[in-house]
Amino acid sequence: MRYAPIPMVPGPTFVPGRVLAAMARDYGSGQIEADFLALYERVGKKLAALSGSTSDVVLMSGEGMLALWAGLKSCLRPGDGVVSVGTGVFGDGVADMALTLGCKVEKVSLPYDSTIGMGDSLQRIEDAIGRLRPVMLTAVHCETPSGTLNPLPDLAEMKQRLRVPLLYVDAVASMGGVPVEADRMGIDLLLGGSQKCLSAPPSMSIVAVSETAWDHMKRAGYQGYDSLLPFRTVQADGRCPYTPYWHGVAALEAALDLIEEEGPAAVFARHEAVAAQCRAGLRRLGIGVFPHRDAVQSPTVTAALVPEGFTWQGWRAALRQGGLIVSGSFGPMAGKVFRLGHMGVQADAALMDKALAVMAAALDAGPA
Amino acid sequence: MRYAPIPMVPGPTFVPGRVLAAMARDYGSGQIEADFLALYERVGKKLAALSGSTSDVVLMSGEGMLALWAGLKSCLRPGDGVVSVGTGVFGDGVADMALTLGCKVEKVSLPYDSTIGMGDSLQRIEDAIGRLRPVMLTAVHCETPSGTLNPLPDLAEMKQRLRVPLLYVDAVASMGGVPVEADRMGIDLLLGGSQKCLSAPPSMSIVAVSETAWDHMKRAGYQGYDSLLPFRTVQADGRCPYTPYWHGVAALEAALDLIEEEGPAAVFARHEAVAAQCRAGLRRLGIGVFPHRDAVQSPTVTAALVPEGFTWQGWRAALRQGGLIVSGSFGPMAGKVFRLGHMGVQADAALMDKALAVMAAALDAGPA
Repeated sequence: MRYAPIPMVPGPTFVPGRVLAAMARDYGSGQIEADFLALYERVGKKLAALSGSTSDVVLMSGEGMLALWAGLKSCLRPGDGVVSVGTGVFGDGVADMALTLGCKVEKVSLPYDSTIGMGDSLQRIEDAIGRLRPVMLTAVHCETPSGTLNPLPDLAEMKQRLRVPLLYVDAVASMGGVPVEADRMGIDLLLGGSQKCLSAPPSMSIVAVSETAWDHMKRAGYQGYDSLLPFRTVQADGRCPYTPYWHGVAALEAALDLIEEEGPAAVFARHEAVAAQCRAGLRRLGIGVFPHRDAVQSPTVTAALVPEGFTWQGWRAALRQGGLIVSGSFGPMAGKVFRLGHMGVQADAALMDKALAVMAAALDAGPA
Repeated sequence: MRYAPIPMVPGPTFVPGRVLAAMARDYGSGQIEADFLALYERVGKKLAALSGSTSDVVLMSGEGMLALWAGLKSCLRPGDGVVSVGTGVFGDGVADMALTLGCKVEKVSLPYDSTIGMGDSLQRIEDAIGRLRPVMLTAVHCETPSGTLNPLPDLAEMKQRLRVPLLYVDAVASMGGVPVEADRMGIDLLLGGSQKCLSAPPSMSIVAVSETAWDHMKRAGYQGYDSLLPFRTVQADGRCPYTPYWHGVAALEAALDLIEEEGPAAVFARHEAVAAQCRAGLRRLGIGVFPHRDAVQSPTVTAALVPEGFTWQGWRAALRQGGLIVSGSFGPMAGKVFRLGHMGVQADAALMDKALAVMAAALDAGPA
């Protein structure tokens, strides 16, 4: 039974039965069973393939934020230069995280309704790289609070041309719903989470690590729960740095198998189609979207404007009464923007029809 | 179905059906549902009651090592003094972790087969505190690799008399299997994990935080995935610092309910009884134990000596052939010590009978 009748939160999504079933089994100790090591390797390879990556994939026990911190702390030393590109709350948040490590950070903060490539954004990024000569360039692929998807090719080109050692990309809300093409984009730290487009529970953190990134980790010598380096030798050591979460990795594999069976291309197309269905439906209802008309909207999440006459609280309550659970947004969008997460198993045309019907009824009823 | 016929690893234990069933359900987003906030609070209170604590309990998504790092990094600043008491791999490991934070550390490293109070251990600890005037005193309650349980009253007395601000106790392998009496012992950071005596999967990290510890966290201002401070205001904020793992917290509650139904006193007595059964059985088989005869053996785990004539690999294989899964040990005990984890649901007389029978048969058959 589903917790919510019409779940449309942009992660955690509802979790399909086969994934839940993989969690409801007894497993041994992941530290001593060869079965677990084989599972760990298999899941890493499946995630890499899904993301267009040939890097090593690290699976850590924890929520997606663990991947974000791990990528920064494992590679960076105080004084290292970081250029962060922000088109939203998470993009600018990475800069704030790097600042706590004592890094020299240039924050290229772009409008939160825009995506990379608009206006003078590329020039500003290039200028920042020229000034700082950073060790790392950071960006967020899908900026969930804004409902946008940042195109990565220009960053990839700049990284190579301007010889930035490390490209760090938060793909938590795109991995598995959108082609990421990590190798083609030259991504050194590709960060993912289990509860977004993969539709597993929020228990696993994913980092695909390039050879260059491993080298930086060796130099940085960082230690902590979120240190990636000890995961480099999981197979050789025959064990993880701490007792791994077998149930969580098994759930991830079940989720990846569902994607594999449908076919990644079909999965990506389904996300595109349901996103288009969502936006056409909102247009018919007279509900605006938050992203600028020149921005790329994400196939995984739509950030829409709370309809006129409604407060966010009132709108949320009206939708919930109809069984539809949506999210609000953060920072400058709080109270003005609501979000529909059509990612993973929630990229479902029938579910979206129901969601649109609830919104239509709420508009008809009007503010309380 | 159990993964192992006779599971006797000192965590992760096998997971009872009711706990697995709590994971196999669909939940909503822990960031927006009042149901989750209520669950989070309830589970924290149950853990506190079980541990004799009135502190706030933080539940983080991750393995027990997350709690260990979180307690140190959240409170300590470079230059802070730390006196670490080690009677085993984990106790000395805490000192090494504190060193990476730039702390001044005095490591009181005692024999790995001993427990606190033996020999001149108390004098050495007192001397170290006198020399360093530390911010924090650290100890491990159950030292799993050694199969010992450190008595805490003398440390508690010393902490109070010598005015050490913070007492940090790793209770990962004792919480739920042994009375911890956190308040009576003056523990400021009580660290636990879900997969040991609680018999939930290895997905949740537990820290009971005293008011003094919260104050130190405010001064330290640490930021990271393992920063405890943001959890102080979960109920007031109506949200966790990151998407919480509802399935994991629900599993923990199911595990705690099993303990509550049996009654904590009965659970602790069951651990004592099965530990005694284990040791009497080993004695009959002529298998020695690792801890010194004056040390306190843990009711949750027995560290035994690999029988003469067997290598650790050969002994492990012989037991596994009989369906019994045990662990080896670490550091100086590696290859010499094997461990039987009779913690949580594995503190079971019938299971222990089976384990002893397998060991008897393996001894009869002799080394391969």
